[in-house]
Amino acid sequence: MIEEEHLDYISSIVGKENVKSDKAHKIAYCYDATRERFEPDAIVFPRDEEDISKILKFCNENQIIIVPRGAGSGFTGGALPSKGGIILSLERHMNKLLEIDMENMVGVVQPGLINMEFQKAVEKVGLFYPPDPASEEYSTLGGNVSENAGGMRAAKYGITKDYVVALRAVLPNGEIITCGKKTIKDVAGYNTAGILIASEGTLAVITEITLKLIPKPKFKQTYMGVFPDVTKAMNAVFKSLAAGANPVAMEFLDALVIKALKQKFPNIALPEEAGGILVGDVDGSSPAEIEAQLETLKNSFAEYGSTDFIIAKDDAEGAKLWFARRNASPATMIYGTKKLNEDISVPRSKLPEALDEIYKIGDKYGFNVPCFGHAGDGNIHVNVMVKDKTNEKEMEDGHKAIEEIFQLVVDMGGTLSGEHGIGLSKAPFMSIAFNKAELDLFKNIKKAFDPNNILNPFKMGL
Amino acid sequence: MIEEEHLDYISSIVGKENVKSDKAHKIAYCYDATRERFEPDAIVFPRDEEDISKILKFCNENQIIIVPRGAGSGFTGGALPSKGGIILSLERHMNKLLEIDMENMVGVVQPGLINMEFQKAVEKVGLFYPPDPASEEYSTLGGNVSENAGGMRAAKYGITKDYVVALRAVLPNGEIITCGKKTIKDVAGYNTAGILIASEGTLAVITEITLKLIPKPKFKQTYMGVFPDVTKAMNAVFKSLAAGANPVAMEFLDALVIKALKQKFPNIALPEEAGGILVGDVDGSSPAEIEAQLETLKNSFAEYGSTDFIIAKDDAEGAKLWFARRNASPATMIYGTKKLNEDISVPRSKLPEALDEIYKIGDKYGFNVPCFGHAGDGNIHVNVMVKDKTNEKEMEDGHKAIEEIFQLVVDMGGTLSGEHGIGLSKAPFMSIAFNKAELDLFKNIKKAFDPNNILNPFKMGL
Repeated sequence: MIEEEHLDYISSIVGKENVKSDKAHKIAYCYDATRERFEPDAIVFPRDEEDISKILKFCNENQIIIVPRGAGSGFTGGALPSKGGIILSLERHMNKLLEIDMENMVGVVQPGLINMEFQKAVEKVGLFYPPDPASEEYSTLGGNVSENAGGMRAAKYGITKDYVVALRAVLPNGEIITCGKKTIKDVAGYNTAGILIASEGTLAVITEITLKLIPKPKFKQTYMGVFPDVTKAMNAVFKSLAAGANPVAMEFLDALVIKALKQKFPNIALPEEAGGILVGDVDGSSPAEIEAQLETLKNSFAEYGSTDFIIAKDDAEGAKLWFARRNASPATMIYGTKKLNEDISVPRSKLPEALDEIYKIGDKYGFNVPCFGHAGDGNIHVNVMVKDKTNEKEMEDGHKAIEEIFQLVVDMGGTLSGEHGIGLSKAPFMSIAFNKAELDLFKNIKKAFDPNNILNPFKMGL
Repeated sequence: MIEEEHLDYISSIVGKENVKSDKAHKIAYCYDATRERFEPDAIVFPRDEEDISKILKFCNENQIIIVPRGAGSGFTGGALPSKGGIILSLERHMNKLLEIDMENMVGVVQPGLINMEFQKAVEKVGLFYPPDPASEEYSTLGGNVSENAGGMRAAKYGITKDYVVALRAVLPNGEIITCGKKTIKDVAGYNTAGILIASEGTLAVITEITLKLIPKPKFKQTYMGVFPDVTKAMNAVFKSLAAGANPVAMEFLDALVIKALKQKFPNIALPEEAGGILVGDVDGSSPAEIEAQLETLKNSFAEYGSTDFIIAKDDAEGAKLWFARRNASPATMIYGTKKLNEDISVPRSKLPEALDEIYKIGDKYGFNVPCFGHAGDGNIHVNVMVKDKTNEKEMEDGHKAIEEIFQLVVDMGGTLSGEHGIGLSKAPFMSIAFNKAELDLFKNIKKAFDPNNILNPFKMGL
């Protein structure tokens, strides 16, 4: 339990103005995108790595819980102080872009920097940072690394872990470590950066991130493939990719999402008879490359039953095609008052079967389950729509349906989470996905970094 | 210490024919590419994962050292039984290609499969596995993963870790774990695959590897840039890459290597006045893409002082250009009887300065230090040439020079090893590269996986 004298000591490190324990601040830092609420005992805004080192050392010695926090935009409660303790907020001071190193094509940032700010800064100098989670306008790069955030462009460009070159971090005992170098190859010592990525703030506090950048693709064009049903669309996904198509994004909307979009946006530019849609961009270094990509997609899609293939003439038309995908999530709310949404991921070839089985689970309990998401990388956003969230029986059924979906996905060789992490929300399902040896190993790894269990405890089932 | 009854028990698991402790076998399994020799107490050839699980459980309970081994082609002693124990050889039975999954574009292999056999198999069906260590014709994929092997194509395509999708492994206690799924995105649980990669067989025995494949590039062409000196060549490397060139490989030869090649191969196709050479391939999906790549390279090279830019007309001409690079290593032996070679890596922009300082260290001790390697990714093979290896003073000076080079590289933000790992050879230098907190963390990680320290102990300074 945290006491007044603890906060006094921490104030002596970071300054009184950077320690808050009033009610307003506790409420401001008690939530994330799960809508769960847990009030912290205090919120501390470290100014630099040295502050963090001193705070962690002190909290480690005094068994005080520390929960690192970026923007609080996570979907699984990773940044929530579920058992109280101190929120270590990295957004106020530790949000700087430290360097864009053109020669080595890397960017060096503090963890609190917003993803989109970084993207804009590097694009200004002709470089490109591909990971683009849906939260890109407000989520922080530290949060992105801690959750190993994905995004639309993962199909072609991979996810956050593919861009982390090096990290600096503070261990729970206050010691500062560097993981990796500004080099492409580095095989000296254990790959500690590898284990910090996606560790959800449970192993160390990341204080500096070196991210790989690539040259900005010169040309981009948006396409949309229209299919009579979602099974045909899903077959076209992995068949076209196996045929050599390499789109930046290949997003899908199923029949329920399309219906919802038409109802919510009567003037939306969507084909009359669509039962499944694939939408995305292709990019490249020449118009010829773009054209070849579009040709491959069009032919593959046709082979697997598409009824139309639309190519946007310009950015404005592209934005119109993207409108449907970008508004898929709010549109699904026509089906209920509460959405139980999960971001499962399966091997791409299993997409048709996975969707089929997911709908069957929905039918069994009487739920609409509109699905959309990142078909190009097998990552589906599944939405079990509860009609009346005040109906306990219906809510309970909703959770049962989710659990069945998790079991299905794991049985198909898939994962509980493609992007959102485990946090608190998915912790109860860890034993579906992992055997005892694996869960024990996770506990041992946690202990190797954090023997006193002060850093974001109780997350990931730890 | 291993006893007869231990071997009897292990024979009861794997069969007598798969346990060897005669002198001939001990000698056959006592070496690797370091030329150091340590005889094991026995060699065991497990038939499958279950064998490995039983063996590890037994050895863990009886504190018997286990050293996993692929082809024994490592450069730092990672597979050497430096304190005896059992060699667990994965080359005899566990060398199968289990699956090429075209739809999900992954290959599933056992650890003992030779890299090149895998490359050939996937290319037959139009796919491509980029990591191509120089040892590709004999090194195993399990060894490649354990050392995080690089190769020529790393400049464009990355290294082994960029292709590991999932692993199965046996922990020292005999428990079997899976790390990752056949999905592109997976953020459930700690990234245990990430920490097993490059762990040099110290944490678990890898029993199955799922590797990402990409479509095979349709076109390829070889280029060579000729420079008056190596500094100009090194500047051209990072400037051309920053300008958007994206060659598959960008290898370099310095003046001493060029001189050695001309002396050893009088008819070699090398320009008269070359003081530094860059050679490599570009690839792509169309001739236009190849042409554009070559144009970018040519212009960038010219801007930074190249005197010639040669494009191979066909594969035969390409092979001629590559001949110099492929024979660089043996050619350097004109300078001495013993080569102390290290594979340091620096941020690309530091290449000119790094080479300059390395030559100065060589001059100080009176050594020729011919350098060549993977300039495109900053990974240099440094060769301190000892003229008379029977001269103790000269050998001692050689090791001093190597130590100074390590210190230099680390001071420049580089790493002790780009590809070869730490093993035994580089273990004494770990404290140059890592602080106490980092070294302690490595020990804690080791303990989390292997509390009894039976799995490849004493490697990486652990």
